[in-house]
Amino acid sequence: MGGGLTPTVVDMDTIVSLCKRRGFIFQSSEIYGGIQGVFDYGPLGVELKNNLKKLWWRHNVYERDDMEGLDASILMNRRVWKYSGHEDTFVDPMVDCKLCKGRFRADKLGESQCLLHSKLHPGECEGELTEPRAFNMMFRTQVGPVADDESFAYLRPETAQGIFVNFKNVLDSTNRKLPFGIAQIGKAFRNEITPRNFIFRVREFEQMEIEYFCRPEEAEGAFDAWVKDHVDFWVNEVGLDREKLRLYEVPESDRAHYSKRTIDIFYQYPIGWEELEGIANRTDYDLGSHSRQQDSLGVQAQVIPNEHTTEKLTYFDHTTNKHVVPFVVEPSAGVDRGVLAALCEAYDEETLENGEKRVVLRLKPALSPIKVAVLPLKKNTPEIVAMAKSIKNELQKGGQMRAVYDDTAAIGKLYRRQDEVGTPFCVTVDFQSLEDQTVTVRDRDSMQQARLHINELKAALQDRLDS
Amino acid sequence: MGGGLTPTVVDMDTIVSLCKRRGFIFQSSEIYGGIQGVFDYGPLGVELKNNLKKLWWRHNVYERDDMEGLDASILMNRRVWKYSGHEDTFVDPMVDCKLCKGRFRADKLGESQCLLHSKLHPGECEGELTEPRAFNMMFRTQVGPVADDESFAYLRPETAQGIFVNFKNVLDSTNRKLPFGIAQIGKAFRNEITPRNFIFRVREFEQMEIEYFCRPEEAEGAFDAWVKDHVDFWVNEVGLDREKLRLYEVPESDRAHYSKRTIDIFYQYPIGWEELEGIANRTDYDLGSHSRQQDSLGVQAQVIPNEHTTEKLTYFDHTTNKHVVPFVVEPSAGVDRGVLAALCEAYDEETLENGEKRVVLRLKPALSPIKVAVLPLKKNTPEIVAMAKSIKNELQKGGQMRAVYDDTAAIGKLYRRQDEVGTPFCVTVDFQSLEDQTVTVRDRDSMQQARLHINELKAALQDRLDS
Repeated sequence: MGGGLTPTVVDMDTIVSLCKRRGFIFQSSEIYGGIQGVFDYGPLGVELKNNLKKLWWRHNVYERDDMEGLDASILMNRRVWKYSGHEDTFVDPMVDCKLCKGRFRADKLGESQCLLHSKLHPGECEGELTEPRAFNMMFRTQVGPVADDESFAYLRPETAQGIFVNFKNVLDSTNRKLPFGIAQIGKAFRNEITPRNFIFRVREFEQMEIEYFCRPEEAEGAFDAWVKDHVDFWVNEVGLDREKLRLYEVPESDRAHYSKRTIDIFYQYPIGWEELEGIANRTDYDLGSHSRQQDSLGVQAQVIPNEHTTEKLTYFDHTTNKHVVPFVVEPSAGVDRGVLAALCEAYDEETLENGEKRVVLRLKPALSPIKVAVLPLKKNTPEIVAMAKSIKNELQKGGQMRAVYDDTAAIGKLYRRQDEVGTPFCVTVDFQSLEDQTVTVRDRDSMQQARLHINELKAALQDRLDS
Repeated sequence: MGGGLTPTVVDMDTIVSLCKRRGFIFQSSEIYGGIQGVFDYGPLGVELKNNLKKLWWRHNVYERDDMEGLDASILMNRRVWKYSGHEDTFVDPMVDCKLCKGRFRADKLGESQCLLHSKLHPGECEGELTEPRAFNMMFRTQVGPVADDESFAYLRPETAQGIFVNFKNVLDSTNRKLPFGIAQIGKAFRNEITPRNFIFRVREFEQMEIEYFCRPEEAEGAFDAWVKDHVDFWVNEVGLDREKLRLYEVPESDRAHYSKRTIDIFYQYPIGWEELEGIANRTDYDLGSHSRQQDSLGVQAQVIPNEHTTEKLTYFDHTTNKHVVPFVVEPSAGVDRGVLAALCEAYDEETLENGEKRVVLRLKPALSPIKVAVLPLKKNTPEIVAMAKSIKNELQKGGQMRAVYDDTAAIGKLYRRQDEVGTPFCVTVDFQSLEDQTVTVRDRDSMQQARLHINELKAALQDRLDS
């Protein structure tokens, strides 16, 4: 961090407040009291989120030789979730309070449930709790005009299955050879019993997932490579401090039903060390479970017998002349958790020479919602205003960068506004500009200013934004 | 179209088949028999769709001075849909057949319902039909652990309401003055009784919507301006033939409950003239209906009395010193319908001099899923292969363009493969390349080839892609 000797440690309330005030993130349906665990991205938030997704897609699809993309639907045939195992195992244990009818996650309550219950809700009821019961976290909805037991679908709780059930389609349309991966970004939904911590644990969220298909004997190597590659991604491209990232080897008892090995990439959020991304070795569990004639395929995982699928999700290996069910290594990251990490990492406060406090979001320029702000030094001088607006217009032509114009305050305040949302460059038009067609370009982090001729401005900014 | 004297008229089956075979669009959950009215975008489809969305965002947000972006959630507080009017009016009339229990849209059956029913399903039942009943097209799901009548949400049937209920949030965080607009791209869901025509009428789809807020007296002018601007967008940026676009003035009896005026932009799809985008004057109906103390706001529309909202969704007009509920002009386009139009428009077949048929997608380069294919003339010459791979690697560095390498067929066949998916440029490495470091660059439309030095290749391609 550029500011002081030690980096600013930010608390969650500060981030939440900044997000609301400056238009990054709002509570969904706020005017009706909201909806728990659901958030909206405002004018700056949508840019930040889209920029993160773009970086991820470039890194994982465009810059590699072994990747394809996909965008599968949220609603799917419900059998997908039967054979993925989610209908049976995607559950949280839940207890009810017999007195107040409150419902809670049993595994968050500890041994002495009643006491902890009352501790979590001081002054509330101390009623007796029921035995834990399984609560499936998938949202369900009726599809089609006829309401019967067959005509429903789930909102997908992970994007991964959309990739698995399309394995054959992608293979047939691209002629890919193992190993190769399929990347996907999209919404997923989980009916969390207790959503919490702003956009960290929510009911509607977005995932950036890769399913990387390889020969069984290649899986361990691919696993290690993806862990390393994605730690580097968060550090080098998103700008997270490597010291704030930790690898956590998930013990077998905590792993999902499909996973042979899982490493979580933890980030040091203001709420503590929490998962930002998980890399799992899903073995041949998913492709195997979605296949017919499983006995003939040499599947290693303990799959779910399947009478409904029409396909064998295999790969014909020309080196061995055998059909093989590939193993899958899955790096799965949360878009919203990535946005939150980027915001927390970038937040900085520093005291200027004049004693004023400056809040600055030291976002990587590639992530910044606004790339350049064009500001008139005097809003009462029509020539300056006209020139500033014309420069803004020139910069936004072609739509390569989000540029804004602002004249609603004195220049110092305008700079602060842009610092606070992470705008890397401010261009100021002053009296000298009218004479020699130069403007000042102010750097967000150093606050240094340099004069540039307007003819070289756009290329110079683009260069620095790309670097 | 470049091919013959008359443009190729493509039928829907040809497009559907191309989409499946080359990885543009797959039926969702196909291995389980699918799910009606839901589709997945494959490796090429996700690129085409994302490119369309990027063009739209640039045109409507980045290149204008009066627009903000937003990305609101799919799940919202259910009261949003009470006061938007959707709970009461977003319905289709539906009839049941008393004999076969089939369910149909009454307004699609015409006068003599039984006969038409049997005509639609030849050889099936001719049973008596019930009286039409209202069927609400919103998907519903239970939210939270407690299943009661209060704890449900709808999947949004339009993205628009996410903008309206955030009107105050956006205003407060951006200090915008009227007129200004909010743009949003996102999924929406409608439980269509009879989804049909590939991705044209589906249950899960994506919208690109703008809500443009202005003073009541500015609405008509804004309406006309958006109609013109968006017709130009489809022609100039997406590449649709202006002759295949028509404006349809929607009569009052067919307009949505909120609309004072609607013009649909129709495109001549293979299935006929159908809606690609609708521009509606929603008046002050939505902001008014979501406001408290409606009587004091001078709302012109007949709004729904609202006891639940916490806000007045007004704008303080400094020119009149009065609070005003803005009028809203809404250009609302379907992403999937845009993709389908772009595919149909681009599809061309031509007969070459040697008598062979060539299928070519004449997509605008900005829309093309793959920007450049690098091909070795001989896959058995290691130096050529190595050079081709190295060029591919150089082109994809920085992630600015999707580049592919292909050596799995003879060069003529490789060209056809790329033509068929709309790749604007093929770079071929041959024996001369090894000597003088030049490669041929083949243009998709003209099939002309030119030699370029590899040092100037990337910049030359980028130039042509941007133009």
